[in-house]
Amino acid sequence: MSEERPRVDTGKLTRFSTEALEKLGVPKEDAEITARILVACDLRGVESHGVAHLRMFYGNRIRRGLINVTPKLQVFSHAPSTAVMDGDNGLGFVVGYHAMNEAINRARETGASFVTARNSTHYGAAAYYAMMALEHDMIGFSGTNNVPIVVAPGSSVPAISSNPLAVAVPAGEKPPIVLDMATSTCAGGKIEIAIRTGSDIPEGWVIDSEGQPVTDPTKRFRGGGGMLPLGGSPELGVYKGFGLGLVIDLLSGPLSGSVASLIKETLPEARGNYSDHFFGALRIDSFTPIEDFKKSVDAFINALEALPRIPGVDRITIPGPYEAEIAEERQSNGIPLDPKVIDDLKLLAEELGMEYDL
Amino acid sequence: MSEERPRVDTGKLTRFSTEALEKLGVPKEDAEITARILVACDLRGVESHGVAHLRMFYGNRIRRGLINVTPKLQVFSHAPSTAVMDGDNGLGFVVGYHAMNEAINRARETGASFVTARNSTHYGAAAYYAMMALEHDMIGFSGTNNVPIVVAPGSSVPAISSNPLAVAVPAGEKPPIVLDMATSTCAGGKIEIAIRTGSDIPEGWVIDSEGQPVTDPTKRFRGGGGMLPLGGSPELGVYKGFGLGLVIDLLSGPLSGSVASLIKETLPEARGNYSDHFFGALRIDSFTPIEDFKKSVDAFINALEALPRIPGVDRITIPGPYEAEIAEERQSNGIPLDPKVIDDLKLLAEELGMEYDL
Repeated sequence: MSEERPRVDTGKLTRFSTEALEKLGVPKEDAEITARILVACDLRGVESHGVAHLRMFYGNRIRRGLINVTPKLQVFSHAPSTAVMDGDNGLGFVVGYHAMNEAINRARETGASFVTARNSTHYGAAAYYAMMALEHDMIGFSGTNNVPIVVAPGSSVPAISSNPLAVAVPAGEKPPIVLDMATSTCAGGKIEIAIRTGSDIPEGWVIDSEGQPVTDPTKRFRGGGGMLPLGGSPELGVYKGFGLGLVIDLLSGPLSGSVASLIKETLPEARGNYSDHFFGALRIDSFTPIEDFKKSVDAFINALEALPRIPGVDRITIPGPYEAEIAEERQSNGIPLDPKVIDDLKLLAEELGMEYDL
Repeated sequence: MSEERPRVDTGKLTRFSTEALEKLGVPKEDAEITARILVACDLRGVESHGVAHLRMFYGNRIRRGLINVTPKLQVFSHAPSTAVMDGDNGLGFVVGYHAMNEAINRARETGASFVTARNSTHYGAAAYYAMMALEHDMIGFSGTNNVPIVVAPGSSVPAISSNPLAVAVPAGEKPPIVLDMATSTCAGGKIEIAIRTGSDIPEGWVIDSEGQPVTDPTKRFRGGGGMLPLGGSPELGVYKGFGLGLVIDLLSGPLSGSVASLIKETLPEARGNYSDHFFGALRIDSFTPIEDFKKSVDAFINALEALPRIPGVDRITIPGPYEAEIAEERQSNGIPLDPKVIDDLKLLAEELGMEYDL
């Protein structure tokens, strides 16, 4: 698929996205942070969380007044390793960027930190924030809640969002390990990709209001139903995916002085756009010498990549090294964009009186 | 099933297990810690990690000299929020108990803590350690690696253990939320239960050396193969279960100054019994007032329990409250034990010259 799609330059796409956000009223520095995070996703092949959302999701929410483009971020701290950020309903990218830096700074002092953020909005891919720890030789964590779209086992009514967990672990000569997993069987963005490309979705992603599988992605959530937690069925561990998502909701919402997303939906002031997050960092050399650690991670990655494969399987895919390879290729050759995404960016340029130069 | 099984008193089972461990050479205090953790699992219905393992697993390993019953635990710390424990190849229960206390004490001072432990052995159910945080109004975490039994996606050779993650979150009037999830589709202990009860296992738990599903539990790992990561298949997110397990291996092994279990297996000194762990604690009132937090967790649990259900589903099961209900019933009426487990405990009593009085 990616072979046939037009390629756009990473730098150009970042500048275009920054300018669009500025035209939408986002201050320059915040527009740069947001554009950088969006394009970093496309670069790593995580197209479900990249510029495809720039106009339809973030842009339109800004225009509808659902996101405060000039938030006053506040940090409250009652202990050396912890803090809570109030995002003032700002762009989740900006809240996330500053909250993760807060976590990194605290871990530098105490070895381990945990920072929560409330009154924020959709922050894109959790991996970006976790990865911010890497250049500091730290392990980074992040997770977030959002509007419920995933059902509880036994119910067909959404109870939690796809509440992702991201963890980034530095390696030495190998690319870092980067996990970024929705706690549903698939990320919501993958359903959007299926709609965009006219593909069916597998059984196990979405159920209807009767609990029956939905395979036509355009029929998702029509008349009820929702996405399934990771595991998919009781015998294959659906309680695990749901339990992990539930815990991520608690660490994001209640632990930031907010509430779980299922409760937030019932509050009069909620407008379906509220999100809370958490961020953590571990300074590796407060546990073990950093060079030993990195060698040990490299050895693990090498051993995994060398595992015997089932016939027909080309390679063992490791989260992090896999995306790093995609990023390297796209940095050289440009980021392939779906024609529908290009149309949407052109429309955005027109709406904002910008030149489309990608 | 549990209706027909003989019931044994919790206190008696704890005393019996303590005495057996003492006869095996474990000092009294460590025997008490170990017995308490084992029986706590059976009490909460987690029979895959309870006294069924007392003779066959822990007892026999002690007798074979694979576990050091009089370890010298050492704690190394280079930052206020972090520490590493060397378990001196002691019982994992004892290492885990002391390492989690270390995490709790550090979180009391700094708000958030992370403690790793190396040179340990199988520590039973991860939930027990996470739950130790609850009485301190903290959120607790724990995870562990062990001998590889779970395959990497695309391989049929075990790469990691079922590397569980446990998280315990205090509630107010409701029982606490307690997640304890193997990152495989099922916990290894559930396969043992299927063997004990003569049941088949579902497709998606185990594959053979060709990558084909195994449903006869007695044929697991015969001639190769292994358990599948949570998600089970690529389209339902097997990379997520594997990625989470991989991260848990890194946090347990390399971050404690040890190595990933796949590497440990190749070392001459490894005897298939080595395990590393991690433990974390978050002091809730360093983020938000504890009463607000607990009310918020209660509200979430109540809202989840009140969700509309799919026809035929009796109730929405929440991890933690579900097990608390089982524990309450078993505390009153005794713990049901499988006849094969009773036979094994009788044999253990005979071997150790103890009276069997359960």
